[in-house]
Amino acid sequence: MELLTIVPVAGLISIASALYLFYYVSRQDSGTKKMQEISAAIKEGATAYLKRQNITLAIFVAVVAVILGIFFNFHMALAYIFGSLCTTLASYFGMIAAIKANVRASNAARKGLNQALPVAFYGGAVMGLSIVGIALLGVSLLYYIYGPENLDIILGFSFGASALALFAKAGGGIYTKTADISADLVGKVEIGIPEDDPRNPAVIADNVGDNVGDVAGMGADLIDSYIAGTIAAMIIGKAWADTLMGSNEITATTYIILVILPLLIKATGIFASVLGMLFVRTRKRGNPGAALNRGTFATCIIFAVLTFVVIHFSGIGDYGLGIFLATLAGLIAGMIIGLTTDYFTSIDRPPVLKTAEAAKTGAATNILSGFSYGVVSIVPPVVGIVAATLASWYLAATYGVDPVYGVAIGAVGMLATLGMVISADAYGPIADNAKGIAEQSGLGKEVIAVTDRLDAAGNTAKAISKGFAIGAAALQVLALFAAYAVVVGITAVDLMKPRVIAGVFIGAMVPPLLSALLILAVGSNAFKMIEEVRRQFREIPGLMEGKTKPDYAKVVDMATRGALKELLLPCILAIVSPLAVGFLLGKEALGGFLAGSIVTGIIFGLFMANSGGAWDNAKKYIEAGSFGGEGSDAHKAAVIGDTVGDPFKDTAGPSLNTMITVMALVASVFAPLIATYALFP
Amino acid sequence: MELLTIVPVAGLISIASALYLFYYVSRQDSGTKKMQEISAAIKEGATAYLKRQNITLAIFVAVVAVILGIFFNFHMALAYIFGSLCTTLASYFGMIAAIKANVRASNAARKGLNQALPVAFYGGAVMGLSIVGIALLGVSLLYYIYGPENLDIILGFSFGASALALFAKAGGGIYTKTADISADLVGKVEIGIPEDDPRNPAVIADNVGDNVGDVAGMGADLIDSYIAGTIAAMIIGKAWADTLMGSNEITATTYIILVILPLLIKATGIFASVLGMLFVRTRKRGNPGAALNRGTFATCIIFAVLTFVVIHFSGIGDYGLGIFLATLAGLIAGMIIGLTTDYFTSIDRPPVLKTAEAAKTGAATNILSGFSYGVVSIVPPVVGIVAATLASWYLAATYGVDPVYGVAIGAVGMLATLGMVISADAYGPIADNAKGIAEQSGLGKEVIAVTDRLDAAGNTAKAISKGFAIGAAALQVLALFAAYAVVVGITAVDLMKPRVIAGVFIGAMVPPLLSALLILAVGSNAFKMIEEVRRQFREIPGLMEGKTKPDYAKVVDMATRGALKELLLPCILAIVSPLAVGFLLGKEALGGFLAGSIVTGIIFGLFMANSGGAWDNAKKYIEAGSFGGEGSDAHKAAVIGDTVGDPFKDTAGPSLNTMITVMALVASVFAPLIATYALFP
Repeated sequence: MELLTIVPVAGLISIASALYLFYYVSRQDSGTKKMQEISAAIKEGATAYLKRQNITLAIFVAVVAVILGIFFNFHMALAYIFGSLCTTLASYFGMIAAIKANVRASNAARKGLNQALPVAFYGGAVMGLSIVGIALLGVSLLYYIYGPENLDIILGFSFGASALALFAKAGGGIYTKTADISADLVGKVEIGIPEDDPRNPAVIADNVGDNVGDVAGMGADLIDSYIAGTIAAMIIGKAWADTLMGSNEITATTYIILVILPLLIKATGIFASVLGMLFVRTRKRGNPGAALNRGTFATCIIFAVLTFVVIHFSGIGDYGLGIFLATLAGLIAGMIIGLTTDYFTSIDRPPVLKTAEAAKTGAATNILSGFSYGVVSIVPPVVGIVAATLASWYLAATYGVDPVYGVAIGAVGMLATLGMVISADAYGPIADNAKGIAEQSGLGKEVIAVTDRLDAAGNTAKAISKGFAIGAAALQVLALFAAYAVVVGITAVDLMKPRVIAGVFIGAMVPPLLSALLILAVGSNAFKMIEEVRRQFREIPGLMEGKTKPDYAKVVDMATRGALKELLLPCILAIVSPLAVGFLLGKEALGGFLAGSIVTGIIFGLFMANSGGAWDNAKKYIEAGSFGGEGSDAHKAAVIGDTVGDPFKDTAGPSLNTMITVMALVASVFAPLIATYALFP
Repeated sequence: MELLTIVPVAGLISIASALYLFYYVSRQDSGTKKMQEISAAIKEGATAYLKRQNITLAIFVAVVAVILGIFFNFHMALAYIFGSLCTTLASYFGMIAAIKANVRASNAARKGLNQALPVAFYGGAVMGLSIVGIALLGVSLLYYIYGPENLDIILGFSFGASALALFAKAGGGIYTKTADISADLVGKVEIGIPEDDPRNPAVIADNVGDNVGDVAGMGADLIDSYIAGTIAAMIIGKAWADTLMGSNEITATTYIILVILPLLIKATGIFASVLGMLFVRTRKRGNPGAALNRGTFATCIIFAVLTFVVIHFSGIGDYGLGIFLATLAGLIAGMIIGLTTDYFTSIDRPPVLKTAEAAKTGAATNILSGFSYGVVSIVPPVVGIVAATLASWYLAATYGVDPVYGVAIGAVGMLATLGMVISADAYGPIADNAKGIAEQSGLGKEVIAVTDRLDAAGNTAKAISKGFAIGAAALQVLALFAAYAVVVGITAVDLMKPRVIAGVFIGAMVPPLLSALLILAVGSNAFKMIEEVRRQFREIPGLMEGKTKPDYAKVVDMATRGALKELLLPCILAIVSPLAVGFLLGKEALGGFLAGSIVTGIIFGLFMANSGGAWDNAKKYIEAGSFGGEGSDAHKAAVIGDTVGDPFKDTAGPSLNTMITVMALVASVFAPLIATYALFP
């Protein structure tokens, strides 16, 4: 059992590194008084939002915990609460670090790019390291307490983490786009003041949104996949190890290794992430994008080497190579998906260029073009997911490893370097906010130019890490699907059966429906908020002249209330629909439901994220001076496209990953009840 | 065998009725000289398009026929050619009738609504009756020649019909929207002349588009489902009858009845359609919408009664009730789907009203709203499809009928009244064109008001018939999926197998990809055509003053060439992708591919069609005077939404039905080869 100790050790190292980086960021100078004021307002708004979100979340968690306690047991309920608590704490801590890093990176930009980069990056790394550290620590703790016989308790922990993810991703997503759209529509379009202008009552809400939606939400979303993928692989590993034990093919030690291997691989991923981060620093001339990528690649290589060593010495013999190759297949597929997806949203590639050009003939053609390229962009990741699934399956099978376990390990491999991925990803909104703060506090053109370069690097890093996230979510949820089958005790999900086809249809319907509900929520919230912003401009005397301050807090509060209210229906749908299908149509139909939801969840998630990215960059391309530049008709058309894309890429698209994970977890957690009480067996 | 004779008799009656109605429409007065001129130009353009389309189609059909001849046999190749020839002839004939009816309905509108309605409706009925008649005649002829042992030959016939459908729907769809967008963007937006203004060089192309896209394309699309659903049910029926014969449970006569029952049900549907059309006439005061609906409902009731009688006297005993109830389940589900879908695109319902209201805050919010409601609108049809599948399955099973046969029969029931459905559907573009001709020939406000009422009735009829079409396509393609399994000899398509999941993912990717390619095709074509329309306005002297005529023919020709060129890639994709999956990943993976494509095909098809409908009606609602009416900012925003919706609802959305049918047919036709030569068994 000694090998297992590297897991909590990795968790602790990760948390310790996060604490050190938090200290490092806090120590930096937080700039002028005006900058500190803005930062304080952002912090206040973000804390207010999170406080309210966490109260609502607490009620939600309490209700679900009671249900789990009644239908299962006290331990399950406790693990659920523990899961949501751990991830909430980590993501709160990460967000505070990000807010600190915003203003400090902005201030460091006054000294130059080389000074600003580490502040922004390590600010993001606090989130990355603390969240994977606490997740791994939590899972290993539960494993120590309950042992391999009670993996369902860890499933409860994962379910708890997913509750936070759902709230943070969907709620934060509604919040951030409500604020963004209102700020832009009234400020830029109607009144004609620049973006991030402090006179705009919605500007603080917009900045808050970047932190609660992009930083906290994104971290919560990925950690959800991270934990779920680990426990799914453990469940599948145990099922396979049980068969091997049954036929006396392995020893008791090997048995345990097969169960905890997913944890071990995740632990090596943490070591690799911490080491890989050192590579972000070692650059001579300031190319922040290259520095970030170097960090990502270094992490992957270190991870591959470490994993090989760990598996080699774990004593599982011939199975080792199959498992290692499956891990590698997942890792490589993740990178390829990231790089190819980047093509469709890069500012210098045909999809974005053509979308920008289409703005010449108006908003409609711009929108049709961005929509279409977004849809076409699903091809490389879908092919990548298919290739990763087939490769890890056959590589595993070649060496006698259970192929389903191979796929699950592929997913583990893809997400193992998550510490680094989240760090690079969280860097993006920090750089974005640093730029915003530089503009609002009037730091001058040169400083803004530095923050611009920081910001641009964030976009590339984000594209690659997004690829990882999507690929990993897909593979991981396929592993969850297989884990569900193990838990519920079915060996086939046959599409020739009408209830399975019915399940597939209903499951496929849910993700698009959820995305539509989220977009409608943004629309109806923004509608109310626009009225409030207009009212403040109309009624507060001296606001336009910059003599008085707008009532930021009121707008922040409206965005908060609205987002949490609108969150209810999607959350209920994500939890109730799999249960309804399971209890009414049976366990095999629920398998079909999960498969259907995975497929459309991934397709809608990808196309919405990438269409949004294409419209966003097409607008930026025009703003850089092409097709008439800023203020031209083409620019106006592109702004419309970008606004359509906002809730696509920042609310609906990224929420779908979480939704499909939540639904798969609901199915797995409630599997024993469904197996017993379903209307149809 | 005598019972089978009612099938060709029904086909002949249908064709005879179509000929009579063609004679009736032709006999009507075709109006003023100017009207005749316009009509001649439309006819010329449409014939030019169809001629070129049919030449391209002939080459395509010849190539595929040679392939079929080499890999299968001479008979298969011949049936394929025969299938494409029959449907091409029928849809050409129907389109000529529609063009004749356009101008004559417009002229009849000068006398009043009661005079115009029968002209427009019977003009559409020529398409409806000729196409179902010739289809049923063709299928029964092949059955007479080849007998129940060679149903694969009829599959070849169906495959041939689907080739036309693919060309007519996708090619016609690209054509019509290229012309529409160019005419609107240059004419209405840039130059500021009214819609349908004869000075616009693209106006004839636009009118032509209504006929080739909406009339000919739609007819071809539905007939494709009609034939494919029939042959799928026959194949499944035969497989079941074979088992029953094997265990001596039925006589040779019953055996034959079970195989030909789908044909018999379709025949009763034709009788019901011909009789139901008489009800369209019998109205006192002119409410054309109610008259059309009365016709549809009457057809359904007559069909139900006739089917009961036919099944009762067919001598299949106890199975009869199960089969009848399955038919009824399909019919009722089709109606419910139609009525509920109508809710999301009706001009007086919340989805459209809110989408119109969202235009107040700009095009972006209008687009987000229409998009979201379009996505939400998938819920009733998906639930309807699921209910129909489960109901027909269990009703059949209750009476000892093979449940898969039950689902197939449900699909047959849903589409049996297609003669009436197409007639009501083709009425829509005829009324639309009649209105256009009235405007272009300056018939005055009163006449235009009459044509407006004709047009509005067409929209309601279209919504209901569209519901039928979507539900039927879904159920029918599920039946094809089952038929594929029968042909290829698999009894399960297990989602727990990685190659099946891979197939599902790839299959699910194809319909969205196809829709994106079609939209991009419209975009790039419209881009070129806009330049040409602008050039004509710029270079032809006296055009704006109405002294000289624009070069209509050049624009028509450009639209034609462009549409056919862009058609190639989607067609190849639809044919090659199932073959690639089948030969590389095996027959079970291809089953997964089909299931995946059906699910996303239906979801994307529905949401695109209904989003487009919602935007269109939101614009019309504003034009009727709300939120500032025509020319207001809200109206401009709604026009952008409507333009985005054009290729959604008239190109990509409706093409997807055809695409998934074609892919399922490709799989079924090539099933024997795939079973033998696949890389993985």
